[in-house]
Amino acid sequence: MEMNQQVLIAEIPQGKLQAGHYRLSQSPVPEAGEGQVLVRTTAFAITAGTRAGLQGSASYAGAPTSGVVMNATGVGEVVESRAADIAVGTMVSAPTGWQTYSVHDAKAVEVIPAAHDPIAYLGPLGINGLTAYFGLLEVGQPKAGETVLVSAAAGSVGHLVGQIAKIKQTTVVGVCGSEEKGAVLVDQLGFDASVNYKEQSFRDALKAATPAGVDVYFDNTGGLILGSALFRMNTFGRIACCGVVSQYDTDKPEPGPRGIPGLLVNKRINMRGFLVFDFADHYAAAREELHGWLKDGSLKSLTDEVSGLAAAPDAFVDLLSGGNIGTRIVRLA
Amino acid sequence: MEMNQQVLIAEIPQGKLQAGHYRLSQSPVPEAGEGQVLVRTTAFAITAGTRAGLQGSASYAGAPTSGVVMNATGVGEVVESRAADIAVGTMVSAPTGWQTYSVHDAKAVEVIPAAHDPIAYLGPLGINGLTAYFGLLEVGQPKAGETVLVSAAAGSVGHLVGQIAKIKQTTVVGVCGSEEKGAVLVDQLGFDASVNYKEQSFRDALKAATPAGVDVYFDNTGGLILGSALFRMNTFGRIACCGVVSQYDTDKPEPGPRGIPGLLVNKRINMRGFLVFDFADHYAAAREELHGWLKDGSLKSLTDEVSGLAAAPDAFVDLLSGGNIGTRIVRLA
Repeated sequence: MEMNQQVLIAEIPQGKLQAGHYRLSQSPVPEAGEGQVLVRTTAFAITAGTRAGLQGSASYAGAPTSGVVMNATGVGEVVESRAADIAVGTMVSAPTGWQTYSVHDAKAVEVIPAAHDPIAYLGPLGINGLTAYFGLLEVGQPKAGETVLVSAAAGSVGHLVGQIAKIKQTTVVGVCGSEEKGAVLVDQLGFDASVNYKEQSFRDALKAATPAGVDVYFDNTGGLILGSALFRMNTFGRIACCGVVSQYDTDKPEPGPRGIPGLLVNKRINMRGFLVFDFADHYAAAREELHGWLKDGSLKSLTDEVSGLAAAPDAFVDLLSGGNIGTRIVRLA
Repeated sequence: MEMNQQVLIAEIPQGKLQAGHYRLSQSPVPEAGEGQVLVRTTAFAITAGTRAGLQGSASYAGAPTSGVVMNATGVGEVVESRAADIAVGTMVSAPTGWQTYSVHDAKAVEVIPAAHDPIAYLGPLGINGLTAYFGLLEVGQPKAGETVLVSAAAGSVGHLVGQIAKIKQTTVVGVCGSEEKGAVLVDQLGFDASVNYKEQSFRDALKAATPAGVDVYFDNTGGLILGSALFRMNTFGRIACCGVVSQYDTDKPEPGPRGIPGLLVNKRINMRGFLVFDFADHYAAAREELHGWLKDGSLKSLTDEVSGLAAAPDAFVDLLSGGNIGTRIVRLA
């Protein structure tokens, strides 16, 4: 009998996450109840934000406990359906977690149109793409000719933010953690410049890369990068607070950046936190625009794949130390 | 011959401001040039924000140097006019500084209508009142039934913020530094509650005073009070960043509050710095509304007067340590 292969959280990490905080397990393949579907996972995305849910305290991602399947957004095929509207064989996006099979209420899955690449629902047409889209355009509100700065710029959200900002005719500077990533941003994705935050000269390099200051900062990191960005902001600048990746993988969060609130006042900066779910009513229109950009080549999706469930814990640990370029995906089939 | 009595900045303070950083001086009364008026100061306001200008670094208040007259907004009578539109005897508001006479371009003074009390232009009809008005209503955007928190609540801006918030039918909690001030806020100005930030139990008391959380926080202080307020903010809360009084009188600014940007993301908080000057196009309409509230008794102006130029330095030092209730005014005539 085929079993459901799973990766469980073995232990809530204190300090840095390690692969040993997870363990492989298996259980019987679940059955769909009335109004539900059984999904066989094709692939799932590994995203830094899920690290926040492992801190054992209140978090927007919920607070998983040990012994449960690690959470993730995935895509897969419906292999059993007791929902009227969803046929067997349909591809869906769903909170599959790190496992080969999962059962969902019909209303908790999203049917992927046949014209769309299912894998894109883990990237530019999924939560990452929608986060980039709404965070940049609705929260950041860039205007043509302005300068947009994005941190974790080679990450699953950041590499899309920068490209959308280019589509909107801004000057785009990405902050990332290696020369290799910076080269990808500039050479392959059209960023105007990149800055490596791990260099001693980071603040000077950031200044040199933003000669006209920064009008919109899309912050995926918080911490020291946010602190440095604040000093480059222009009057009436906007900061879209998307995530705090610098603080996820630690039990000793940094204090907030100096200059808050003083610089916010002097420069009349608007700093706004957002979650993509707040824009759910507008996903369809956003996906249509994102899909158009993918088709005409103005938006490229970078993915960074590993294969097989057993690779997921190491892939997550590596992602938290900045090992990925683009969206990290674990492919199961 | 009558001389212009002045208080000069003798020395830019390192660390806490002391009265000895100022010295009394005198010079000939200046003459109005073409298009200018000579103003004899009736009174001027002492406000915490001018402390920021003494830090020797870039600041929205400009950066005074030693040997110059201390800056302040004042009101006074035009005693000589070479400006076509302003008659001798007109009462005006102007950046008089700490001195008995000053010369201004006609366009740099504001004529006070005869129906208005000139002293109110140092309080509810002046920069303090306009700051409270626009910061609360435009930046904070309180809705009836919400909870508004204000820090430095017994100060020149704070005591007006709380009252305007009551006019807008919100629940209002003020943070201040003594039981005496708290009693004034609740008993005389209609605040729903006050919390003393100097008490050990401040965070617990703040929690108890805001059982429904905080929807709008009007921040005059930054620092630890901002840090504590962040944890009380409701989802989609707004923080109007008006000033950083906790950080003015020091050469060792605190790090920013923990929870930034993490709490901003999780709670989707909008934190926005503002300067009242950005709303200058709307002053007239705001003054009309503020004047109406003063007349019908729904807005009360608390002032805290001292007499004579020589009293100004001590009055400023005392204000920075929280000695005032309401707007501190130095009256010269």
